Amino acid sequence: MATVSIIGTGNMGQAIADVVTKGGHDAELIAHAEADKPVTGEIVVLAVPYPAVADVLAARGDSLDGKIVVDITNPLDFQTFDSLTVPADSSATAQIAAALPRSRVLKAFNTTFAATLAAGTVGDLTTTVLIAGDDADAKSELAGVVTSGGLRAVDAGSLDRARELESLGFLQLTLAVNEKVSWTGGFGIAA
Amino acid sequence: MATVSIIGTGNMGQAIADVVTKGGHDAELIAHAEADKPVTGEIVVLAVPYPAVADVLAARGDSLDGKIVVDITNPLDFQTFDSLTVPADSSATAQIAAALPRSRVLKAFNTTFAATLAAGTVGDLTTTVLIAGDDADAKSELAGVVTSGGLRAVDAGSLDRARELESLGFLQLTLAVNEKVSWTGGFGIAA
Repeated sequence: MATVSIIGTGNMGQAIADVVTKGGHDAELIAHAEADKPVTGEIVVLAVPYPAVADVLAARGDSLDGKIVVDITNPLDFQTFDSLTVPADSSATAQIAAALPRSRVLKAFNTTFAATLAAGTVGDLTTTVLIAGDDADAKSELAGVVTSGGLRAVDAGSLDRARELESLGFLQLTLAVNEKVSWTGGFGIAA
Repeated sequence: MATVSIIGTGNMGQAIADVVTKGGHDAELIAHAEADKPVTGEIVVLAVPYPAVADVLAARGDSLDGKIVVDITNPLDFQTFDSLTVPADSSATAQIAAALPRSRVLKAFNTTFAATLAAGTVGDLTTTVLIAGDDADAKSELAGVVTSGGLRAVDAGSLDRARELESLGFLQLTLAVNEKVSWTGGFGIAA
């Protein structure tokens, strides 16, 4: 059984906690403001908006050493909905990985809306969590938690692919905001 | 009824021609090598690999004036499958639009495999063609052809969004090449 610490208690944090507990694992939900509360999980999910990540890392940096750190952010310019706020040849995940050289940083959950994590489906397709990262064991451990929670997990490749996952998350958010898809739909993946 | 000229007779060109004719429109399939054959369609689909596009534009540039030109390319480095070959802050479509200032350039069809265009479904979801571009009338005309052919068309936004569509096409191709999805599956979209 894994313990998954989730920093951020918004709709994504809560949806991920539900997937974790559905699979028989322990979820530890920690509010962003509870900066003094230690994380006990071997997997730590950063479920805060991207602009708040630096704060979390500043408060908790060393305590994340050796842990699997999961970045779920979509670093959008939410004023314009017309661009990402990270450099075009980088990603939020790459920046987090650079800030946490002793953690095993993964990208995941940024391409699934909270509602499709909760429902377990996108249309008739099982909700798929795309996971990118350079540590195969870490990806496999997170995939185990995801699949035991009733979802599909797909290894999307190296940490470099976080950039494409962020593009996909961005695209999906623009489609939802422009009412081309609903917040209960979006991109599904057929095997 | 629209006439759609498709330059490139590979599996994508043929699949797009089938969608066009299924919808009661005329499809004109032209091989890349038939550089002297004029295009008669008001919509022209560039269904050649990205490295061959420059050639097509050099041969046909002026004859594309005023036409809707549809870029379906995924400008991947097919040696490494690890990056796109266009600058990170640009897109193949942006480059084509710059080369064809008197055409109405759209991105479309790059996020659907030929098999899902032919089947009309991705899993149980109707195959969706994402269309990006700056000319609303051109997008609407192409969307009409797509929907009359039995598929869904979704306006993915301005020409800038071609970058995200190319990221999505890239991601999907890497998933297929790594056998995470099949060439008959991939990304579907639930409304």
